[in-house]
Amino acid sequence: MLYRKAIVAIADGLGDRPHPLLDNRTPLEYAKTPNLDRLASKGITGMMDLISSGIPVGTDMGHLILFGYQPHHYPGRGPIEALGIGMDVKPGDIVLRCNFATVDENGVVVDRRAGRIREKTDEIAQAIDGMELEDGVQVYVKPATEHRAVLIMRGGGLSDKISDSDPKAPNDGKPYHQVEALDSSEEAKRTAHLLNLFLKKAHSILSFHPVNVERSEQGKLPANFILTRGAGQVTQLEPIVQQLNFKGSCIAGESTVLGVAQLAGFRTVTDNRMTGNIDTDIELKARLAIEEIANNDLVYVHLKAPDIKGHDNEPFEKARAIELFDRMVGLIVQQLPDNVYLALAADHSTPCEVGEHTGEPVPVLIYGPSIRRDRVQQYNELDCAYGGLGHLSGSEFITTLHGLMGYVKKQGN
Amino acid sequence: MLYRKAIVAIADGLGDRPHPLLDNRTPLEYAKTPNLDRLASKGITGMMDLISSGIPVGTDMGHLILFGYQPHHYPGRGPIEALGIGMDVKPGDIVLRCNFATVDENGVVVDRRAGRIREKTDEIAQAIDGMELEDGVQVYVKPATEHRAVLIMRGGGLSDKISDSDPKAPNDGKPYHQVEALDSSEEAKRTAHLLNLFLKKAHSILSFHPVNVERSEQGKLPANFILTRGAGQVTQLEPIVQQLNFKGSCIAGESTVLGVAQLAGFRTVTDNRMTGNIDTDIELKARLAIEEIANNDLVYVHLKAPDIKGHDNEPFEKARAIELFDRMVGLIVQQLPDNVYLALAADHSTPCEVGEHTGEPVPVLIYGPSIRRDRVQQYNELDCAYGGLGHLSGSEFITTLHGLMGYVKKQGN
Repeated sequence: MLYRKAIVAIADGLGDRPHPLLDNRTPLEYAKTPNLDRLASKGITGMMDLISSGIPVGTDMGHLILFGYQPHHYPGRGPIEALGIGMDVKPGDIVLRCNFATVDENGVVVDRRAGRIREKTDEIAQAIDGMELEDGVQVYVKPATEHRAVLIMRGGGLSDKISDSDPKAPNDGKPYHQVEALDSSEEAKRTAHLLNLFLKKAHSILSFHPVNVERSEQGKLPANFILTRGAGQVTQLEPIVQQLNFKGSCIAGESTVLGVAQLAGFRTVTDNRMTGNIDTDIELKARLAIEEIANNDLVYVHLKAPDIKGHDNEPFEKARAIELFDRMVGLIVQQLPDNVYLALAADHSTPCEVGEHTGEPVPVLIYGPSIRRDRVQQYNELDCAYGGLGHLSGSEFITTLHGLMGYVKKQGN
Repeated sequence: MLYRKAIVAIADGLGDRPHPLLDNRTPLEYAKTPNLDRLASKGITGMMDLISSGIPVGTDMGHLILFGYQPHHYPGRGPIEALGIGMDVKPGDIVLRCNFATVDENGVVVDRRAGRIREKTDEIAQAIDGMELEDGVQVYVKPATEHRAVLIMRGGGLSDKISDSDPKAPNDGKPYHQVEALDSSEEAKRTAHLLNLFLKKAHSILSFHPVNVERSEQGKLPANFILTRGAGQVTQLEPIVQQLNFKGSCIAGESTVLGVAQLAGFRTVTDNRMTGNIDTDIELKARLAIEEIANNDLVYVHLKAPDIKGHDNEPFEKARAIELFDRMVGLIVQQLPDNVYLALAADHSTPCEVGEHTGEPVPVLIYGPSIRRDRVQQYNELDCAYGGLGHLSGSEFITTLHGLMGYVKKQGN
């Protein structure tokens, strides 16, 4: 078999709709993207639905598929977040996403985000991390971005069929919710009981934590409670790099993407200069992509900015973010070794008029050696609908790439 | 319902990639194919993935799907080979693929192919064919192409969960492997025991076989051993011709294709002048296709040569093989009765730069009465991506054809 390497450049939330402020063009059509268009004219293009037509996906699900898993392998947001912030995750663990929050003496939620706390959450988490509960069940807590955290319950006989303590509604004057079993299993009852116990103990400890005492003195809301949501149990997933027997690497600034990459068995490369926004260092990313492909078979390089600007309903800013993607791709092409494919993809659409992920397909492209070049000249949501790859699912797209690389097993003889 | 007949012309391994020696065109683009292009301009075209995007398939799997089965119906290579060489195969049989080989007095494999023996393998097989083992288990051996053979074990309580006696590595100075059970079932242990017994007995008989005595005198390696591999148990598959209630026929020179045709319940038509290579008799094939369609509803006519030239990394030769296909199709069109569809298909891509089957889609075409003609003017991997059939799976394509023929059952009322 002829084996080849590939770099996949992902523009998060790239897909959009024609926008009146952009003369009814999409941000991708409106942006000046000479590098992307040159690749379109030399490569093969198509339109990709991550799961299927019309179904919006989250960044985690989108990347799970782009890394080579099937949608039903989705392990829940929690495990991906946990991996993304460097927590050790084991099969059987119950993983919950959390907020540091402020409650009053009656347990009423004063602020779901503890005044959007950003500082010293590591010290606060440390005070309750590694707590031993009954029957050898342990709880681990690590801070994530800003007011967020991840909580892991570890020990036999646990279940993710439990409700959220987070009331979700912001500051509605109601107490936090008691965690309840969502099915009649003993495991769910036990897990709910243990988690309620933990939340109480954590509250006692955090109420007198020096960081919170200091915050109260400064008139800030104390982070004296952990609101939990989205429990998920970790199952054993075989890393993609093992399934296909190659080496992979992922360059990204965002913990969700890094978490999926870890799950898939990819080496993760990150740096403070990768900000997850428009001020990210694209020269660094491009340089790392070229460095990483020397020692890996498949390298992902991710740019978050287009998605952020879509969520912010900013079409001009989104076009700018896409021009950044174009320049990053241009830098990669300049140094792309012969015999290495370069693919362009996105994890979902985030139309500026919506400000949320939607289910419209995204344009995809593969450029490289002996590719079946199609007639499409521009990389955007409309031209790529006429591409040689046709209209395909995320799994089909990534299997196409794996196939070109030589790693898909023949069926039959 | 309006019933119509169809002829399907299959160019084995047709799909390819742009090749530098062909001005960056694929062999199918490069070849002069006036007949195929005329059909494209009058018919409807598309791109077909036999199973799904990026997944390579073997000739057996590709044809299984083209004959109307689903990929999960794949019975293993052995049963297809056995059927292809005219062996009687029954549900429950264990079928193994074999090589005639040479071993020394210690059982060390001197040559896995007995000096690539081609002559008198029928006499050698006959000496051990039909042997009765313990408990009424019988063994049948028939020669296949060159040094290859097929072995069938028949009798109750057998299992295909057994290892290979073939050490695979060519001439590594190691003895042939004892066959072992691959699971803990009594059936597997019994089957392994019986097969080891057979291999010993066969070795005793073949060591003194006149053909081998003669070979030794001529300084040739004797075919004194049977190396077995790829055990598979035959399950009952309902023939396609029964499922759809029509009559079918297949014209081919290759045993794999003929085996799949038998499995699907198609009449098989072959002849020594169909060589499985570029010297095959296309006039004969075209004439037989027209003869067979008189008494059948669906006729397949197969040309192996493009695949062979792809495996040989010969783009010019592959283009020549495709021109042969074009002429064969031209001869069929000349005499095609009114009201009969003519479809073009391939079982997989075999790009010359790779020399192996790959997962890229192949162009397909249907020409005939009242077809929804599209705008495509040429039959190749790039133009057909713009065809009216779109991008479809092998099962979807063949169901499209069965549907046009009037044989697909309505769902609902």
